[in-house]
Amino acid sequence: MSPPELITSAANPLVKRVRALTDRKGRRREGAFVVEGVQPVWRAVEAGWEIETLLVVPEHLPASAEPMVARRRADGTRVAELSAELAARLTDRDRPPGLFAVVRARTSTLGELPVPPDAVFVALHDVGNPGNLGTVIRTADAAGAAGVILLGETTDPFAPAAVKASMGSLFAVPIAAAGADAFLAWARERAVDVVAASGYAERAHWSVTYRPPLAVLLGSEGEGLPDELLKAADTCVRIPMVGTAESLNLAVAAALMLYETRRTAFPHRPGTPSSPPVSG
Amino acid sequence: MSPPELITSAANPLVKRVRALTDRKGRRREGAFVVEGVQPVWRAVEAGWEIETLLVVPEHLPASAEPMVARRRADGTRVAELSAELAARLTDRDRPPGLFAVVRARTSTLGELPVPPDAVFVALHDVGNPGNLGTVIRTADAAGAAGVILLGETTDPFAPAAVKASMGSLFAVPIAAAGADAFLAWARERAVDVVAASGYAERAHWSVTYRPPLAVLLGSEGEGLPDELLKAADTCVRIPMVGTAESLNLAVAAALMLYETRRTAFPHRPGTPSSPPVSG
Repeated sequence: MSPPELITSAANPLVKRVRALTDRKGRRREGAFVVEGVQPVWRAVEAGWEIETLLVVPEHLPASAEPMVARRRADGTRVAELSAELAARLTDRDRPPGLFAVVRARTSTLGELPVPPDAVFVALHDVGNPGNLGTVIRTADAAGAAGVILLGETTDPFAPAAVKASMGSLFAVPIAAAGADAFLAWARERAVDVVAASGYAERAHWSVTYRPPLAVLLGSEGEGLPDELLKAADTCVRIPMVGTAESLNLAVAAALMLYETRRTAFPHRPGTPSSPPVSG
Repeated sequence: MSPPELITSAANPLVKRVRALTDRKGRRREGAFVVEGVQPVWRAVEAGWEIETLLVVPEHLPASAEPMVARRRADGTRVAELSAELAARLTDRDRPPGLFAVVRARTSTLGELPVPPDAVFVALHDVGNPGNLGTVIRTADAAGAAGVILLGETTDPFAPAAVKASMGSLFAVPIAAAGADAFLAWARERAVDVVAASGYAERAHWSVTYRPPLAVLLGSEGEGLPDELLKAADTCVRIPMVGTAESLNLAVAAALMLYETRRTAFPHRPGTPSSPPVSG
């Protein structure tokens, strides 16, 4: 096989393409996004996502990652090499990663999401911070959630900060985008209990027994959930707060809800005690 | 009273000072840091932190914040005005805030931390990301923690990203920095149970009954806790994970630990059910 193409100019079309994909409009137009770092790229490959191009930065690529790159190349994936200097211009990180990938974007529709009896989804309405969204996706993966549902004006899961914060879990958790009404109709039809988190709810999140399938629903960082969604929810719960903090970080709130539903709903899962701990 | 001084030049010593305080060395040398935004500055004022200077950006200051600024000025705080253009150069945010404050830094020593019988501390070892640290401080406040203890090479709580992520809770939660050995000696002496979170522990975090006073101990984002600290802990627990995620975000892990200790340790606190929820 001939050596991989070597890119030395910032005017190279592939470099321009990577830059264009940092922008939401560019990602929408191209249907692709960029993944940085050996581990996240490896997760995308393993999960069967379509890799358009691998961009290798030889100076920064660990030797342990070379076989993966060679295998993809043998399978027909386009592989190009970038200088460290050029790579530094394509990343916000202090040290450029050894590997970038251009990956085809992929989301599900609500109708495509499987709803097993034990499904716990997390639905986010108008969440604006891509780092928060990525962290929610990472936590949803760890907590065994069945999917992440993006409602309203929720930010793009393929934004660089979201991809980074998801630490590769983006490739493991189904993600669907929908309007709020379509979400509520889907939940009714599939008998998915909607559990809204709100600072104004009366019941504490840890005093409820959750019955999957369910969707934990959280609102935007600044505003929380709009009234229509709070009213339409089957249950509203509040995460107790005692200090001067006015709210919790959105990704923290989502994690507390996801782990609390898991703790009370799945007492016989591995890692879960078969009865609740005794307070004392 | 004469009108506040108006700053129009980037060469103004106060502007230079604000810039110098974005740097850890500058903060150490000066013993001060910068707070951005009306709400966080108001929290610092209310909590009695020493405000060196208030920098007002008239174009962006909401009218509702004017009385607070006027009161501080009447009390002798130095108040200066900045153009929006100059303010934009002092912030990473897309839209400059209406108010900046230069605040005197303040931390506690371990010996100064009160240890009431129900105290729950969170101790972080070698945590590198200031956004994570700020989010931990915010969650510690909301969960009623008695303090945040910074061990080893943990990042600076007065870094701009930490201050921002703490959302003003920095001014409500005692923060102490210490060496790991001093922390362990303090915990033994004050009968503070050390509960370490580790991916390798056998017991799930939700299967343990926590007995305050205690300190939840978490390690760095990449490495977790070093063996010495894991061995020295009174209890080691693991937050169960089921998906492909290799770890949880540090601030998420701290939140799950803090809320879990609170749920099982304080069954009679307001907002806490008097008995654990029944699984089903």
